[in-house]
Amino acid sequence: MKTLWLIKIGGNVIDDADRLKAFLKSFQQIPDPKLLVHGGGKLASALAQQLGVPVRMVDGRRLTDAAMLEVVTMVYGGRINKTIVAGLQAVGCNAIGLTGADGNIIRANKRTGWEQDYGFVGDIERVDEKALSGLIEMGLTPVVAPLTHDRQGSLLNTNADTIAAKVAVALAGIYQISLVFCFEKPGVLENPADDESVYKALDYSSYLAQKSAGTISGGMIPKLDNAFAAMREGVQVVQICQAEGLLSLLGDHPAGTRLKL
Amino acid sequence: MKTLWLIKIGGNVIDDADRLKAFLKSFQQIPDPKLLVHGGGKLASALAQQLGVPVRMVDGRRLTDAAMLEVVTMVYGGRINKTIVAGLQAVGCNAIGLTGADGNIIRANKRTGWEQDYGFVGDIERVDEKALSGLIEMGLTPVVAPLTHDRQGSLLNTNADTIAAKVAVALAGIYQISLVFCFEKPGVLENPADDESVYKALDYSSYLAQKSAGTISGGMIPKLDNAFAAMREGVQVVQICQAEGLLSLLGDHPAGTRLKL
Repeated sequence: MKTLWLIKIGGNVIDDADRLKAFLKSFQQIPDPKLLVHGGGKLASALAQQLGVPVRMVDGRRLTDAAMLEVVTMVYGGRINKTIVAGLQAVGCNAIGLTGADGNIIRANKRTGWEQDYGFVGDIERVDEKALSGLIEMGLTPVVAPLTHDRQGSLLNTNADTIAAKVAVALAGIYQISLVFCFEKPGVLENPADDESVYKALDYSSYLAQKSAGTISGGMIPKLDNAFAAMREGVQVVQICQAEGLLSLLGDHPAGTRLKL
Repeated sequence: MKTLWLIKIGGNVIDDADRLKAFLKSFQQIPDPKLLVHGGGKLASALAQQLGVPVRMVDGRRLTDAAMLEVVTMVYGGRINKTIVAGLQAVGCNAIGLTGADGNIIRANKRTGWEQDYGFVGDIERVDEKALSGLIEMGLTPVVAPLTHDRQGSLLNTNADTIAAKVAVALAGIYQISLVFCFEKPGVLENPADDESVYKALDYSSYLAQKSAGTISGGMIPKLDNAFAAMREGVQVVQICQAEGLLSLLGDHPAGTRLKL
């Protein structure tokens, strides 16, 4: 099987034009077929505030009413996605920007039955791995925005880490997947206060122990749960590092943390 | 050669949710391979005003500084494009939204050497007909936003009528093209004050005569110049009608005006 690199970047890279430019240059140097998933960053909240659309978060999740859905469609699907695509074209990478609605690649259901009504937020029902691999085999590099659709005409706001994990699982039958989450920190840290204390490797039982002990906590937990779940469903390699460490993954001394089951 | 329908819609359809929905339903009923080009409508100016970005038009063309480029990228590439794609998916049409940067389908040069500096406005250099036909042959229906790119990392604002005409010309070697411009009026009018006075057919010499006589004037002139140019470059059929007349084009009594060289 061919290797496919599936890289996820978040707000810390997207919100900084110079870091983004440097990242896209590194990304283009990955020789294998590849796919990029991007998050939203602070731009959606900034635009919402400018437009007087209330920004409401519950447990780190964005409540997405109709007005906020318009904002994220403009920011994620338009501004961020197209800026990345044009930036990749400038370095010779034939990128194609996609939301889950484009080519029906990611179909989702509007989240219901939770105590909190999150509004237009999607839980992924199905990723069309053939549509994605069809584009990849044409020589295209998909750039996926954190938006899905319900196939009834509505776009849905969807967590980018979850999209990366689910797309990786769907493509794992076709490619040998290297799934890379670019985080703010240089990897999973043994001591959250010490950026030098990166686990070179982290297996699932150690993760559970660190979670119980409280050394791995907060926003890292859903991210790591997501990543381990992807491994259990067939994703061969999951690495967590900083965007700046991306190219080290091609060599013998990969930056960040390699997950193991 | 297979027929490809290439339909262009403008602001009068896009700005009205009900009309857009009805149009997308008709569009989906066209059995042949098809491609949709959309304009921008009033939404870009409305968002610009909300954000305090000055809206400046010269001779009907939008001056596009960096702030306005962000606005049109969000509105054309995000909100309008993805709303149309999700709407088409809802009626069973496997749409894929594209700007010129996506798959490098439309490369342009920033307009220079004009007396007026239009800012980030693109004059089309090259349409990649193979990339587009590759997507179409995968069963996808491209939905093209009025944005191109310069391959140096910048998106460029580009007139949607021009995109429709240039894409039609590029694809005319691969498909038998039916290019349809959906206008506000039911066709080209013999008497601009009488919507019933639609030319069933209009040839180039009659067009020139009506233009000299002043009965065809204003915004119709660049549109018709564009359309006749596409015919001279190999586009087989050009029809001008209202969005509501689209399905009549499949039958023996097509609505609107058929152009002839």
